[in-house]
Amino acid sequence: MLKVGILGGGQLGRMLLQAAANYPVETFVMENDDECPAAHLCHHFTKGDIKNFDDVYNFGKNLNAITIEIESVNEDALEKLESEGVKIYPKPSALRIIKNKILQKEFYKNSEIPTSAFIITQNLADLQKQENFIPAVHKIAMGGYDGRGVQLIKTKDDLSKGFDAPSVLEKLVNIDKEISVIVAVNEKGIHAVYPPVDMVFDQYLNLLDYQVSPADIAEKTLWKVEAIALKVVKHLKSPGIFAVEMFIDKQGEVFVNETAPRVHNSGHHTIEANFSSQFDMLLRVMLNYPLGNTKHIMPAAIVNLLGAEGFSGAANYDGLNDVLKLDNVFVHIYGKKQTKPGRKMGHVTILGKTKQDLIYTAHQVKQILKVVSVKS
Amino acid sequence: MLKVGILGGGQLGRMLLQAAANYPVETFVMENDDECPAAHLCHHFTKGDIKNFDDVYNFGKNLNAITIEIESVNEDALEKLESEGVKIYPKPSALRIIKNKILQKEFYKNSEIPTSAFIITQNLADLQKQENFIPAVHKIAMGGYDGRGVQLIKTKDDLSKGFDAPSVLEKLVNIDKEISVIVAVNEKGIHAVYPPVDMVFDQYLNLLDYQVSPADIAEKTLWKVEAIALKVVKHLKSPGIFAVEMFIDKQGEVFVNETAPRVHNSGHHTIEANFSSQFDMLLRVMLNYPLGNTKHIMPAAIVNLLGAEGFSGAANYDGLNDVLKLDNVFVHIYGKKQTKPGRKMGHVTILGKTKQDLIYTAHQVKQILKVVSVKS
Repeated sequence: MLKVGILGGGQLGRMLLQAAANYPVETFVMENDDECPAAHLCHHFTKGDIKNFDDVYNFGKNLNAITIEIESVNEDALEKLESEGVKIYPKPSALRIIKNKILQKEFYKNSEIPTSAFIITQNLADLQKQENFIPAVHKIAMGGYDGRGVQLIKTKDDLSKGFDAPSVLEKLVNIDKEISVIVAVNEKGIHAVYPPVDMVFDQYLNLLDYQVSPADIAEKTLWKVEAIALKVVKHLKSPGIFAVEMFIDKQGEVFVNETAPRVHNSGHHTIEANFSSQFDMLLRVMLNYPLGNTKHIMPAAIVNLLGAEGFSGAANYDGLNDVLKLDNVFVHIYGKKQTKPGRKMGHVTILGKTKQDLIYTAHQVKQILKVVSVKS
Repeated sequence: MLKVGILGGGQLGRMLLQAAANYPVETFVMENDDECPAAHLCHHFTKGDIKNFDDVYNFGKNLNAITIEIESVNEDALEKLESEGVKIYPKPSALRIIKNKILQKEFYKNSEIPTSAFIITQNLADLQKQENFIPAVHKIAMGGYDGRGVQLIKTKDDLSKGFDAPSVLEKLVNIDKEISVIVAVNEKGIHAVYPPVDMVFDQYLNLLDYQVSPADIAEKTLWKVEAIALKVVKHLKSPGIFAVEMFIDKQGEVFVNETAPRVHNSGHHTIEANFSSQFDMLLRVMLNYPLGNTKHIMPAAIVNLLGAEGFSGAANYDGLNDVLKLDNVFVHIYGKKQTKPGRKMGHVTILGKTKQDLIYTAHQVKQILKVVSVKS
């Protein structure tokens, strides 16, 4: 049996391990918390720091393949492991580009991939000079995640809210839609593209509100979106699975926002809604199996379950019973013991034949189910 | 989080734990082999003997709920645990009836549930007198499983092949179809019934060849089949999940063959094909959630992957790559390290819109995929 490791033990690892139990594979996870969502679902758990060279190198040196749950891993160790024959998904060279938002933007520009105009700022003083470039979004180059490290700069006064560290300032796109396209690539460079997903964002948290798959976009835009997603992945020159997030503006122009070199929140519906889920697909890539079928079985929506504002502590799922009564929903609770405002605690997938049904039920789920803390 | 235990660590436990990772629950498994299919997917694995009183009692005494993977568990320990407040699915009283084929047959008779005529035999000498009752099937009362403990008695000469132990001799039914209906019952006695499944058996191994869901049966028979399955479960007076296996004869009469008080091979397609899988459903019962939706999303077939004749040793999956290229199949390999002839090593689920498609692909899968042993 091949030995496959995951750096990070959150919900992505958890769902990957649920899928891994369909195949003959020996699984390994490293995370610094032995009660993390994925810890109990692997064959071998290692408590360690995914940002530490020695921890990552020692974890990986006897494995056949490694993937990541999060970009902030020690890529020097991954490069050394790669040089010693361990397969890394994504390749460290692709990871280096993506994990630094400056390099990522430059990569799009150099590869002639449409993306919003941008300026690189090294510090807050740099940013203060960019009054003429706003409205824009300031994104810290390293370490941003799940809405952290992103600051909207609408007015001159907002300039002081930016980051005093290397960052990109991206021209605001007049967004009509945000979509995501997940693309898998195997060792031979053969790819498989999932139907695009409509992502509707919560403006405040910059977290997904709900999403619908397949996205409701015109055929000419669909064509463009798929071609651009493929171009991104092709230029990254790495096998693995990638989520290419794009904006479509009011004129139907498409801009790549950012790319995740891993399984992604925008693909969770594929567990129930598609023949091969994004997790199944990544395993197929890592185990050298043929790529799976990306077609959808039924249209789907997803609602993220975020820790409710004002609650921190042992998690409790208010309204879970009522949501479980709905006929066409699938609940995924990630098993995190502690909730805090905005923390991703789970998601709910809804299958349905019409967009109206899906959105109606998505709103029902959002109203019914709240992640709060147990009364102490 | 509730603490839920599984007695037995095979593929049923494995798939139950895959589903359990969707809910906030702490999982426990006991099995005598710490490399068994479910061992690495639970929070807490205990190496122990599920037939041993002390092992089962000690495993269960701090749990909220326990379920079983196989009937041959120590039910005295389960009864003691039940008396101390641990919820057992199924209740030990129901398990006692089912695990003894004599008690099970008498239960059907006493509950006026249609089942084939039968005679109880205490030993081989008893059986030898039953020449006038054949053709019949001889089933050992205790310990039969997966085709073991079952002997077809067609002629007088076959009488000597029967069991020299307490057994039932069941009149052969002129079978048109074998079907299975899975029924879930919660603590309040509310039930949920899955669509019936057509089971096509391999005559030699007495193991499932392939199955199709929903079964292709006339509406008047469907009504009868569901009513009988519900009657069985109602009379067992236990929450849990049950597979009621039935014969339909050439005249459309329905006879209960046997009942399994647990998740069952005939329900594996529900993972992909139904809104709530049998595994999800059992967890809902054990966690006191509302019952799930048993409706199918798409019709499905299942092929069991059995260890091929003539191969014993480290398992190898010949043709796996070719099966994984098929557009509408889902492969489940149970991760058993050793194969032997007839051993259940995995299953493949096929989704399709027509019965013809399903059966065609089922035969394709059977021809392509073989579980053999690695060349030594």
